[in-house]
Amino acid sequence: MLSYNELYDKVNNYIDNMSYNAQPEGLYAPIKYVLSLGGKRIRPILMLMAYNLYHEEVDDILPNAIALETYHNFTLLHDDLMDRADMRRGNMTVHKKWDDNTAILSGDAMLIMAYKLFTESSNDFESKPYQTHLLKALQTFNAATLGVCDGQQYDVEFESRNDVREEEYMEMIRLKTSLLLACALKIGAELADASEEDAENLYQFGEKMGLAFQLQDDLLDVYGDPAVFGKQIGGDILCNKKTFMLINAFNMANAEQKSQLKEWISKTDFVPAEKIKAVTAIYDAVGIKEVCNHKIESLFTQALQYLSSVNIDESKKGELKAFANRLLKRNK
Amino acid sequence: MLSYNELYDKVNNYIDNMSYNAQPEGLYAPIKYVLSLGGKRIRPILMLMAYNLYHEEVDDILPNAIALETYHNFTLLHDDLMDRADMRRGNMTVHKKWDDNTAILSGDAMLIMAYKLFTESSNDFESKPYQTHLLKALQTFNAATLGVCDGQQYDVEFESRNDVREEEYMEMIRLKTSLLLACALKIGAELADASEEDAENLYQFGEKMGLAFQLQDDLLDVYGDPAVFGKQIGGDILCNKKTFMLINAFNMANAEQKSQLKEWISKTDFVPAEKIKAVTAIYDAVGIKEVCNHKIESLFTQALQYLSSVNIDESKKGELKAFANRLLKRNK
Repeated sequence: MLSYNELYDKVNNYIDNMSYNAQPEGLYAPIKYVLSLGGKRIRPILMLMAYNLYHEEVDDILPNAIALETYHNFTLLHDDLMDRADMRRGNMTVHKKWDDNTAILSGDAMLIMAYKLFTESSNDFESKPYQTHLLKALQTFNAATLGVCDGQQYDVEFESRNDVREEEYMEMIRLKTSLLLACALKIGAELADASEEDAENLYQFGEKMGLAFQLQDDLLDVYGDPAVFGKQIGGDILCNKKTFMLINAFNMANAEQKSQLKEWISKTDFVPAEKIKAVTAIYDAVGIKEVCNHKIESLFTQALQYLSSVNIDESKKGELKAFANRLLKRNK
Repeated sequence: MLSYNELYDKVNNYIDNMSYNAQPEGLYAPIKYVLSLGGKRIRPILMLMAYNLYHEEVDDILPNAIALETYHNFTLLHDDLMDRADMRRGNMTVHKKWDDNTAILSGDAMLIMAYKLFTESSNDFESKPYQTHLLKALQTFNAATLGVCDGQQYDVEFESRNDVREEEYMEMIRLKTSLLLACALKIGAELADASEEDAENLYQFGEKMGLAFQLQDDLLDVYGDPAVFGKQIGGDILCNKKTFMLINAFNMANAEQKSQLKEWISKTDFVPAEKIKAVTAIYDAVGIKEVCNHKIESLFTQALQYLSSVNIDESKKGELKAFANRLLKRNK
């Protein structure tokens, strides 16, 4: 089985050597910029790992894997524009480095490039089995790409609501984050002509892992080591993001803590560090870190159960297990 | 052969009965709104007419046809946002009726819906011929969707340039307008399993017709009847759009007219009606209307030559000819 590092190099190598339309440069330079900023390349690697369960050679589906990474980076580009975020991965965002219209149009072109990559893999279109797999995988891709938009819309709508329930938050992160991980694995299986049962189990493995991954991200946003995390600590608290933690802290708080939380949420004029300190203190008091860690562990266990149901020799699943562990035991 | 009116009704009927994800409503309401604003439905009708040359029944490819219309309306939605245009087809644009972020995200979802429609036509995926045609048509669709982005980028870049040449303008409108008409016809032929030669001739017919169509649009922007045209007359003149007419007027003008044109282009403080009147007077003096009409006629003749090369009984081409005539002899 190919290791994480081998797949990571394959993905980055493909991206480094990708050809773009030469002109108009103003359209393609931002796309190249965004794709070169790096990142963990989680989605393409998951797709390749799933395919690798069935086929030794994964290069045939590299274009499909990069399609997913291109799509993911397109969502970051447009999300950063909508959030007016200035920085991403330590670099200026596209609307900041260029302008809003460039971010809109280059993002659109990037989404189209994702579809182009997905359908123009090096495989032979005349081969009937491949065509069937590709069309099936394309529908899985469509479900993911549209679902992520649904998730982003909920995320935006939750900003102006104070009554978001835990189930609603979990559904939002399922759509916005989990779906693409789950579909990456399912597409890998579909392109490899795996059984529907295997594809579905890999999907569920990805979905549960994705939920745990996002909760871990939320946890690091509060309890991460600022020197390691790479993002500002407390960002979610400052913008009153209705995370699993805030929702549950509110539910578990006593009357006094509840009124303090409410006060901080409604305050428009505050010293950021003070708000982060105060809300974190309430989180500590109600023990939200433990509740969140418990939920992450439970989702992780479910994820591994789905992986163990995949009808493939256990010895072949080592890389996927190690990857899941790496994602969930991370500190950045 | 199905008439324009019959196809127009089929297209609108399909759009009226389209199902959307029920939730989140905030994402899908703007999409429904945009698609319901009407328009000439040129692109889906061209695709259906091309398919109809080879197959009596066109309903099978309605999803593909609507995919093109959905894509086209997505480009209008994002273009209007980038241009800060308030009105479209007599109604408020999405960013005006909702907000910028809604326009960005609903537009993104619309582009994805176009791909979804394109790949989820009612045809049977298990049928090998259909799969081959669909994948071929999908690549034609990709070429169109990315090319339109290229065209839009050039259009934006030309705004801040005063040295745009006629060839550059023609290439820009080929990408931004013609490509989608040409691809509509080619996709119709490809889905009908027409010969590559026929598909290519239909593509060229569409490309030349599209160029003529855009020049006609530019002409109407200056010489249209305000009561009929539906848009403000002189809009291109006011924003110094480097159209075929402005570029050629400049090339044909004498020293005096050239300096007048330059002055109006560089003026930032002016009475709109005066600028329109003055530039139109120069257009009249150099005879740009005739030059433009001549170019339109020439492109129209070329278009019809390509259509006549399509290896199909002439009697079947009546609807396409009539449609081309309708597009180019229009006054709105």
